[in-house]
Amino acid sequence: MEPVIVMKFGGTSVADAQRIKHAARRIVETRERGNRVVAVLSARGTTTDELIAMAEEVSAVPDPREMDMLLSTGERISCALCAMAIHDLGHRAISLTGSQAGIVTDESHTKARIIDVRADRITRALDEDRIVLVAGFQGVSSTARNVTTLGRGGSDTTAVAVAAALGAEVCEIYTDVRGVYTADPRIVPDARKLPSISFEEMLEMAASGAGVLQLRSVEYARNHGVQIHCRSSFEDTAGTVVLAEGDPMEQPLITAVTHSVAEARLTLVGVPDEPGAAARIFQALAQVNVNVDMIVQNEPASAGGRAEISFTVPREDLRTASAALEPLAGESFTEMSRSEEMGKVSIVGAGMRSHPGVAAKVFTVLAEEGVNIEMIATSPIKISCVIARDRVERAVQALHGAFELSGPDSISEEQPFTA
Amino acid sequence: MEPVIVMKFGGTSVADAQRIKHAARRIVETRERGNRVVAVLSARGTTTDELIAMAEEVSAVPDPREMDMLLSTGERISCALCAMAIHDLGHRAISLTGSQAGIVTDESHTKARIIDVRADRITRALDEDRIVLVAGFQGVSSTARNVTTLGRGGSDTTAVAVAAALGAEVCEIYTDVRGVYTADPRIVPDARKLPSISFEEMLEMAASGAGVLQLRSVEYARNHGVQIHCRSSFEDTAGTVVLAEGDPMEQPLITAVTHSVAEARLTLVGVPDEPGAAARIFQALAQVNVNVDMIVQNEPASAGGRAEISFTVPREDLRTASAALEPLAGESFTEMSRSEEMGKVSIVGAGMRSHPGVAAKVFTVLAEEGVNIEMIATSPIKISCVIARDRVERAVQALHGAFELSGPDSISEEQPFTA
Repeated sequence: MEPVIVMKFGGTSVADAQRIKHAARRIVETRERGNRVVAVLSARGTTTDELIAMAEEVSAVPDPREMDMLLSTGERISCALCAMAIHDLGHRAISLTGSQAGIVTDESHTKARIIDVRADRITRALDEDRIVLVAGFQGVSSTARNVTTLGRGGSDTTAVAVAAALGAEVCEIYTDVRGVYTADPRIVPDARKLPSISFEEMLEMAASGAGVLQLRSVEYARNHGVQIHCRSSFEDTAGTVVLAEGDPMEQPLITAVTHSVAEARLTLVGVPDEPGAAARIFQALAQVNVNVDMIVQNEPASAGGRAEISFTVPREDLRTASAALEPLAGESFTEMSRSEEMGKVSIVGAGMRSHPGVAAKVFTVLAEEGVNIEMIATSPIKISCVIARDRVERAVQALHGAFELSGPDSISEEQPFTA
Repeated sequence: MEPVIVMKFGGTSVADAQRIKHAARRIVETRERGNRVVAVLSARGTTTDELIAMAEEVSAVPDPREMDMLLSTGERISCALCAMAIHDLGHRAISLTGSQAGIVTDESHTKARIIDVRADRITRALDEDRIVLVAGFQGVSSTARNVTTLGRGGSDTTAVAVAAALGAEVCEIYTDVRGVYTADPRIVPDARKLPSISFEEMLEMAASGAGVLQLRSVEYARNHGVQIHCRSSFEDTAGTVVLAEGDPMEQPLITAVTHSVAEARLTLVGVPDEPGAAARIFQALAQVNVNVDMIVQNEPASAGGRAEISFTVPREDLRTASAALEPLAGESFTEMSRSEEMGKVSIVGAGMRSHPGVAAKVFTVLAEEGVNIEMIATSPIKISCVIARDRVERAVQALHGAFELSGPDSISEEQPFTA
């Protein structure tokens, strides 16, 4: 039996007719190398944003079920067009909606979770020697049989889930970058492309600003043992393979530096020092779906039993977060202050586990650059520092240099992108 | 049990956010008058043409199954947006794809025929006090379970089929004209809006150039006894009701004058006078899906056992028709000539059945105007004449006047359109 390969193409990789034909050629090449191929496609370019804008034109608060019905059309268009292009290359292809592909989800419209992949229609099509195109980002809810969507970046998760269900050799995620780098090459020109990375490191990187892979899809891949290969749509070189952790002794101390320039910090002063005070605050934020990242609580000696809580949220959620907290003013805190111009720099590396000196080195490097650290969060394989937004670039460069992450695979030595 | 009303809105009636909201208000008004409402929507404005253009960009000959997958997204977008707008007006609504609505078709992609409507999901939603939006123009094929489309104007057929399945009081077709007129008001300013018309007359009118209703939908309505009310999206006045024929004695002699300016004529000379010669010619045309309208065959005394066959086709099909006939040259005919600038004028009226003098009057009127009649076709309730395209306007005016079709309900006495 020929091996199965799942190939996922993102929105920029299917943005226009030219790129759809290009993706079709890559898919056909993979088929002609003796693989059975399932390709998962996103909506073309800005389609999803355009559909959202339309919804906002007709309704102040668009109904989530109808939003999913609307948004799910984008990926179907990509898949139908790509199937046509594959036919023109002399291969048989069939496009399937999420529902037809057996992507079964829970009932949470606009942010559904995949609960099952009933892949028999995909398998049947593969057995009939067809290339199968699956509309990413969408599924069908298990009881109401409604169209659901998986939320931003959901197509990566579709691809990984299909790969898991089919026992695919690999899930290839095609994107407009060449792979996962030791830092953002736009900031660190001699950043190096990583040939491989562990799931755990990739999860920390995705969570701390690396946009190349969607957090949920990496989690799903780890839980189901799916190998991900993250690579360029536009050139045929190896990218970065994400796989289970190997021999920990072999691992470099630090794998990559990541960053984010879209953080905001909220500080609540005068939080009563009683059980449930913090819980009320974070429940209010959870109810409006705001993801809180770092949390720091201090109890100033002078504050008379009242604490100060600071936390960061994505900048785009700052307004929602403030609005959700307003009603608690007085009872749960006395004052709220906000700073919008925050950033975050993180170093990630599985080797860190056995090297306790890493945090100290990070603080020293940043201090030498005169970068003030506002908040710190750590995990066994990650150290994140919240700093002023306008210092992020310099901090990334300094850390990348100090941990000697540059190397022969840096982008400045590669050929320029060709589309 | 509250009566069911099916309302169908065409592409211009849902072209933008403003019009979708307007359609939503009309739907809600109908609900609030105590009806259960199912609305069938077309794709917005030019969406279908844009999707076809996309397909032609990626593939020389787009695969029909994938074409249907692609085109079916347009109506889904309209329905999802309209459902959102209805929610904002305080009513519950749910949009259903053709497949979800139970529109089961044969397997003929891009021109499928409805073979069953399994309306239980619609009925369940109506029982839950929802307004149901059904994506027009599409269904699901009965065995392969693929998305199919019904061809141009298919949304009218969807609406009539759903009305039949639900035993609806009436199927209201909302459009950008006020109803069915005794002639095109752009040509005959004192043309009269008909309060009602029989299925048979409407079928003849649709077949002879009146664009207001789709031929197939009228046939379906007649076969299933569905009353159609064709009316304006933009104003709340009665339009034209299409219903079963009443007392034939009550009928006016002539109901309407219709026309077409998009005809082409092909003439084949030297067709051998033997069984099967004409059959070969029209089989070749049927194979490329060209609809032949009128056919005239003469056998000139001087032609030595060879006949001359002339027939008309829609002008847009002329090239396809010629190409399909080329290979038969020599064997099935000796010469082919084409004229593109043809038109057709028809008079339609159920009262004609019992009045044999109508044809003579038509020919007299046209002769008095100096209009040369090239071909003639008749049915019990219709007389059609093929004439030069540039004489069509004058012929319509002359016939409308001669049969005294003007009257108090003419468009020039109505209020101007307000959107």
